[in-house]
Amino acid sequence: MMRAAVCSLLLLVGLSAHAENRLTDPENTVTLELDDGIVVIELNPTFAPATSSQFKRLVRDGFYDGLGFYRVIDGFVAQGGDGSDMSEDENAEPTVEAEFDRDWQDELPFVSVQKADLFALETGFIDGFPAGRDLEAGKTWLAHCPGIVGMARGNEADSGSTDFYIVIGQAPRYLDRNITLFGRVVYGMDTVQRIRRGPPAEGGMISDPANSTIIRSARVLADVPDDGRLAVVVPDTNSDEFKAMFEARRHRTSEWFLSTPPAVLDVCQVPNSGSLQR
Amino acid sequence: MMRAAVCSLLLLVGLSAHAENRLTDPENTVTLELDDGIVVIELNPTFAPATSSQFKRLVRDGFYDGLGFYRVIDGFVAQGGDGSDMSEDENAEPTVEAEFDRDWQDELPFVSVQKADLFALETGFIDGFPAGRDLEAGKTWLAHCPGIVGMARGNEADSGSTDFYIVIGQAPRYLDRNITLFGRVVYGMDTVQRIRRGPPAEGGMISDPANSTIIRSARVLADVPDDGRLAVVVPDTNSDEFKAMFEARRHRTSEWFLSTPPAVLDVCQVPNSGSLQR
Repeated sequence: MMRAAVCSLLLLVGLSAHAENRLTDPENTVTLELDDGIVVIELNPTFAPATSSQFKRLVRDGFYDGLGFYRVIDGFVAQGGDGSDMSEDENAEPTVEAEFDRDWQDELPFVSVQKADLFALETGFIDGFPAGRDLEAGKTWLAHCPGIVGMARGNEADSGSTDFYIVIGQAPRYLDRNITLFGRVVYGMDTVQRIRRGPPAEGGMISDPANSTIIRSARVLADVPDDGRLAVVVPDTNSDEFKAMFEARRHRTSEWFLSTPPAVLDVCQVPNSGSLQR
Repeated sequence: MMRAAVCSLLLLVGLSAHAENRLTDPENTVTLELDDGIVVIELNPTFAPATSSQFKRLVRDGFYDGLGFYRVIDGFVAQGGDGSDMSEDENAEPTVEAEFDRDWQDELPFVSVQKADLFALETGFIDGFPAGRDLEAGKTWLAHCPGIVGMARGNEADSGSTDFYIVIGQAPRYLDRNITLFGRVVYGMDTVQRIRRGPPAEGGMISDPANSTIIRSARVLADVPDDGRLAVVVPDTNSDEFKAMFEARRHRTSEWFLSTPPAVLDVCQVPNSGSLQR
């Protein structure tokens, strides 16, 4: 196998290295320091203003510092917090209203990726976030792709309060519009994937906190002094470069492909993670 | 949030604990001992007899022992071997014929899961493996779900030889029928997810082997003496219990769901991993 193989194999990834980038807003960027790495979450006040606001307030209160991921199911989600969602104890923190979807507005910069996948009439990106859209119903919502961050809840719509989950496996899109998604991991998914799993027979519940991966500290990026602050660079999904990247994934021209794949795109399979600059 | 929340949250996972199980065939089961865990791969001689056979021969020759995962792209694949696919060096091992798909035969125990997802007219399981089917064309093939194992290749169909990849992210189904899939991880995906990633800017290539996660040893389970041999238990995807499990995922009845998801299933989102017994 010659050098040509290298090029074609790299093309498979659809590297977004040439996409135009933007910086995340430090006021809507949260860093989680885990045992062996930094995870960066971009919040989404456009879809989840109340939940993003509550999450930031809890981060600033130090609520998550020292807490762990106590429900971790390989291929599904890593859920962290104080476990109040999973216990009969009263939760000291207020609950937050459901923000499962929102009204469509023409001002939203929806970049359409695919019509009619299994779960939505249309999928695309809105400012970096994978989303579904139903123009007839006038609704749009964030989609459960890997790396998306949601607020856990009980059986009532408005019952979420503190505990959150990160999707770590094949997109559980059946959860779309049933739970509030309020952020996405833009850096550190490899670190997220190292979060210790719970026993499958226990539904991923880790009973002994000593076995949990711990959040050493959670910080809002805007609160970090300028001289120590990371810059978080993400692809600008509104850019022509980003659209060209995913269209090239839809229509593969590399000679590596011996049969042409269907001209479709899974919105959850379009790379859109970012990088850090110091 | 009361106890009810616990039950409903657990239901979300669609635990297959009650599915009927089967043991894998030790002759078609390979264990990879990595630095911090065991990964078990079930081979598929029904779809990839030549590739499964070559892989087993290499395992028995000790070819993989001490080699690492040198191309690891978070959210995509972890590729291991001697790197011969990515170099200009002559490969000392013979190449193996392409086994991208196979003729449909009515004897194949296809358990249909979903019609017309983005990538296939029909998806389902064949003896534990996620598969696509096109009855009109008379073809069936294994599907690129998380945990599937494929043989890397160059630009020619029959150019694969030694290096293999494990899918670690959202299903890259556009690769279906373009590359030989010959196995699936039935145990240890959490260990697979801890495989060290390569730098995204380098297309995941790890140039210094010291930075790679190493395969300490690869073994065919049948070669392990009886008294030290693991039994690998996987859900029997042909069983009524398994079908009932995934139909319950298609038609959610838990009160946790405040709006009913579409009555569809992503074959790559149906849990079908196994467990070990000593």
